Amino acid sequence: MSWEKLYASRMSQIAPSDIRERMKLLGDRRLIQLGVGLPDPAVVPYPQIAQAAADIFADPDLARASMQYGPSEGYEPLRAWLVDYMGTLGVPCEPENIMLVGGSQQGFDFIGKLLISPGDPVMVEAPSFIGALRAFDGYEPAYRLLPPDASAWDVATVGPAKFCYASPEFRNPTGTCLTLDERHRLVDLATTAGMLLVEDGCYEKLRYDGETLPSLQSLDVARSGGIENSRVLYTNTFSKTISPSLRVGWVAGPSELIRKLVLIKQGGDLVSSTLNQMIALRVAANYLTESVEAGRRLYRARRDTMLAALTAHMPADVTFTRPDGGLYVWLELPPSIDGDEFAIRALEKHGVSTISGTSFYPVEPRRNTLRLSFSLASDAEIEEGVRILAALVGEMRDARHAGR
Amino acid sequence: MSWEKLYASRMSQIAPSDIRERMKLLGDRRLIQLGVGLPDPAVVPYPQIAQAAADIFADPDLARASMQYGPSEGYEPLRAWLVDYMGTLGVPCEPENIMLVGGSQQGFDFIGKLLISPGDPVMVEAPSFIGALRAFDGYEPAYRLLPPDASAWDVATVGPAKFCYASPEFRNPTGTCLTLDERHRLVDLATTAGMLLVEDGCYEKLRYDGETLPSLQSLDVARSGGIENSRVLYTNTFSKTISPSLRVGWVAGPSELIRKLVLIKQGGDLVSSTLNQMIALRVAANYLTESVEAGRRLYRARRDTMLAALTAHMPADVTFTRPDGGLYVWLELPPSIDGDEFAIRALEKHGVSTISGTSFYPVEPRRNTLRLSFSLASDAEIEEGVRILAALVGEMRDARHAGR
Repeated sequence: MSWEKLYASRMSQIAPSDIRERMKLLGDRRLIQLGVGLPDPAVVPYPQIAQAAADIFADPDLARASMQYGPSEGYEPLRAWLVDYMGTLGVPCEPENIMLVGGSQQGFDFIGKLLISPGDPVMVEAPSFIGALRAFDGYEPAYRLLPPDASAWDVATVGPAKFCYASPEFRNPTGTCLTLDERHRLVDLATTAGMLLVEDGCYEKLRYDGETLPSLQSLDVARSGGIENSRVLYTNTFSKTISPSLRVGWVAGPSELIRKLVLIKQGGDLVSSTLNQMIALRVAANYLTESVEAGRRLYRARRDTMLAALTAHMPADVTFTRPDGGLYVWLELPPSIDGDEFAIRALEKHGVSTISGTSFYPVEPRRNTLRLSFSLASDAEIEEGVRILAALVGEMRDARHAGR
Repeated sequence: MSWEKLYASRMSQIAPSDIRERMKLLGDRRLIQLGVGLPDPAVVPYPQIAQAAADIFADPDLARASMQYGPSEGYEPLRAWLVDYMGTLGVPCEPENIMLVGGSQQGFDFIGKLLISPGDPVMVEAPSFIGALRAFDGYEPAYRLLPPDASAWDVATVGPAKFCYASPEFRNPTGTCLTLDERHRLVDLATTAGMLLVEDGCYEKLRYDGETLPSLQSLDVARSGGIENSRVLYTNTFSKTISPSLRVGWVAGPSELIRKLVLIKQGGDLVSSTLNQMIALRVAANYLTESVEAGRRLYRARRDTMLAALTAHMPADVTFTRPDGGLYVWLELPPSIDGDEFAIRALEKHGVSTISGTSFYPVEPRRNTLRLSFSLASDAEIEEGVRILAALVGEMRDARHAGR
């Protein structure tokens, strides 16, 4: 049977995710994993998570609370903790400015549902985090690209939009940051264009070098006099700092918008698991600093290994970013090499998993691009994987020349 | 600031939930809780859940798996267990016919996203489970009502629709079931109308009297020769049999539809918590029969208490259903009494929480209706609460007569 004719129109925009399909290969054979950006299990604080769960189940009141529906807004003590956390990011706020979501992915889905009618203009960086694009796709936006050069960030050039989605910190997939000047200009653009900013702060804690820069939300809150007047919806998650499988993320913004998003959550999945929110709170309150520090140490060393390997092995016509944080390095391959073809060859012939850069563009992909992650592979695997990829660049370029 | 003009058109259909708003009152004062249909904590198997969590964290491999992203389709051992479970319901299937979702609420949201373009006709029973309506509302359907009398279930009378949402077992809010004949007729209607059936099986295990009837899905699978040819998407959850806060539900149906729903999950919240799915599997595999039996014993007795109290105290012009299972009794009040007004008076003046029946209609509510739940209150509270409600019926009817 075919059900095609019963599908909603949005389904034409919803396609399989290259990354998710490739994740299914994990564990099937020995791969050098430079593809997915999963946190390394070595920095997931299992003992602290296990202890938190044991403490909860040892206390009858907590056990009962953990297994009952909580408010759609989220577990109150965790919201209160996040009020303090957002304060440390320069965003004074109240619990009503914060809601818990099932990972920031769910935040993007709900924000898309709140703001996008079919055909509405939505601005994104290109390339952008594929998960956010997939979430927005379901609401059939007309994408506009934020120009790479901030001098073009005026509404006359880029046009109006409902919102602009931006990752100012160690953006997935490039690993790059917006400069302070760019952050100010983006807030300017949002203000003149009358649009919201949807800020993705998920790599905020994973800085290895350089100085912390203020979030878009903290800049806008400072300018506008408070979160209620700010035009930023900020998303973050414990996926990179505690564990991705807790599925505990949050959205912070003006209470009017949070209230609407809570209504959407009521229709979406009603509430998040109270148990997971309780675990997240306990681990965050007691151990977040240590957990983040362990992650930083590990990932900083792996980033150094990857950049050293890229520098040593890659031909001169391959360029790559040098991120100060996050989990990714972004490569531009020679123009003759297609990222999709390259990633498939690397995986199937050489057992090195990468992600073609083409997936990260909502429209008009730069085809000769590739994302590498240094979160999961050992130093030796990174060194070996990059050597294999460098050889594959040479091989594919030569084959193309020979074929002319 | 007002953001109204940035909202998607669907937001005009997304309104606060009476039930969720009332739940916020829980704990604020002493109430007789005949409103929300939360499982009684007395039948949530805390020791088994705690043991499952302890076992998972005691095994390094399981602990690691519990805190890493799993497949969007769901935790494989749980899918395999559900294949067997669906088999016991007369639905032979494979893992590819099943996906895990964050409670059946998320299943309804994803099904709405898969099937509903704005203005598409969607058929529902009236009254219907408010959560499903809220999920579908976000996709702007044009609701059609399934006539109460099955003799009118032909496509000429009710018109075509993308799908019909039906709860054949102890429907929330009425507590009533579809008869076997009605089940056959509904499958007939779906077949002639070329529509899907979205079956809500969440109260399937909570039968206290009478014989189990086949699900719509099992009837259609038997007719069509297999789940791949069936037009039923079946949803169920562990919320009523283990714990609502695990947020573990599932959808079963033809693999083509399940694959599409998995894509939607990837954009929606990526994956459900592996930990919660592992806990659900362990408790379900080891303890579901006992847990269900404990629930049945408790709720059967409370239903009996509620029906006896309604029979003893309610005036003759109040009619009510006599459910063989589930958690709800549905009342028709005298025509002059508005359910909204009645529920507010009962709550605010008398401390008895109920839910006005008007919330359960997608359009044209019958206003003199009320839902009572017997899941949370003790026998004494049920007896007292029903007495108070009966007196309130008299009071409001007399006030109305006096005011004429």
